[in-house]
Amino acid sequence: MSNFGVSRLHLVNPYKLAFRDARSAVGAAELLKNAEEFESVPQAVADCSLVVGTTAIRDRALRHPIRKLNEDGADRIRSAAQAERVALLFGSEKTGLSNDDFSHCHWLLHVPTDSENISMNLGQAVAVCLYGIAFARVEAVPEQGWEPASVGELEKITQGLYESLKTSGYVKPGNDLVSEKKVRQLMLRFKLSAMDAKVFLGMVRQIVWKLRQEKK
Amino acid sequence: MSNFGVSRLHLVNPYKLAFRDARSAVGAAELLKNAEEFESVPQAVADCSLVVGTTAIRDRALRHPIRKLNEDGADRIRSAAQAERVALLFGSEKTGLSNDDFSHCHWLLHVPTDSENISMNLGQAVAVCLYGIAFARVEAVPEQGWEPASVGELEKITQGLYESLKTSGYVKPGNDLVSEKKVRQLMLRFKLSAMDAKVFLGMVRQIVWKLRQEKK
Repeated sequence: MSNFGVSRLHLVNPYKLAFRDARSAVGAAELLKNAEEFESVPQAVADCSLVVGTTAIRDRALRHPIRKLNEDGADRIRSAAQAERVALLFGSEKTGLSNDDFSHCHWLLHVPTDSENISMNLGQAVAVCLYGIAFARVEAVPEQGWEPASVGELEKITQGLYESLKTSGYVKPGNDLVSEKKVRQLMLRFKLSAMDAKVFLGMVRQIVWKLRQEKK
Repeated sequence: MSNFGVSRLHLVNPYKLAFRDARSAVGAAELLKNAEEFESVPQAVADCSLVVGTTAIRDRALRHPIRKLNEDGADRIRSAAQAERVALLFGSEKTGLSNDDFSHCHWLLHVPTDSENISMNLGQAVAVCLYGIAFARVEAVPEQGWEPASVGELEKITQGLYESLKTSGYVKPGNDLVSEKKVRQLMLRFKLSAMDAKVFLGMVRQIVWKLRQEKK
């Protein structure tokens, strides 16, 4: 990370021993001293407005747009990072990101590898992605004066809307897990401005309040 | 390495314990099982005809051409690898490559990094370089029917020529180390074909033989 000018590290449930060792590594002290631990993925990415997950694309059914690092993936991330805070999300080395983790991502980044070995070492995957992004082309000049909503704000809307959908009977019991992810993905696709997100959250909260009243 | 389709690993004086651990790593078994250990750098690269060293460019005075991975460095390596065997040489994580190691290189490859931290983790440097090379442009179509000399053959010429220069008084005692490297670099710049190297080695050996005779 420090080799390629990236300074904010957010960790979810890190392996404590390795993390402690890493903090004492030469040359990276500042970055690791400032690293923050979070309870969950949505908390770790809450202050970002673009969340990109990483995947080796095994046999899982991914509905997300997948972009290759060496094609437009790196360019898009570098371009977005000119104007907004971007989170690049990596899973554990053994299992990668879960479908729940993916539901917090706008799209997925893939490092093309030899078919003989598609599974990368985590540290190497991070280095390769950050190198690719550091030297990517900045393609689009970001819109002036447009502030995107953070995913933390969108998650509040997701939770409110989801509660409304359950209370109102739109979401059937037993089908809960799928639907929460679907609502979240819908919100991420909306591309709300910070201002619009605020207004929309107010609307949703009012509906939630009304539905709770009627339940009593 | 296996992520990017590179299969030949030559090691010089590896840290035995780490190497033994690495051999037992998941997914890379074949590559590590076939890894070969060598006594010295020239032995490890002997069967290649292009040797590219890697450097973080600190304050050392490098006379070699230095090419950036994201500029023409990766393109040149990928292009060369279409026709000949290329060695990519990495130093130890702590000290990098020595001046003696550099003398065995045709030119040097540099991964541009943030000025805050120019020193990369070895495994990450390898991954970034191999990713860069795997997706580089093949620029020049290699010449047909031209087989370059291996650096192993060139090293034999270097040794013979160097002995001749010492015996003939061209190389002054006390200035030995510099000159051997200079002779080697001269040979690497010659771009001899395999055939020409054979002929030239014969010439040099004859001279060496004659000089030895006269010494007696």
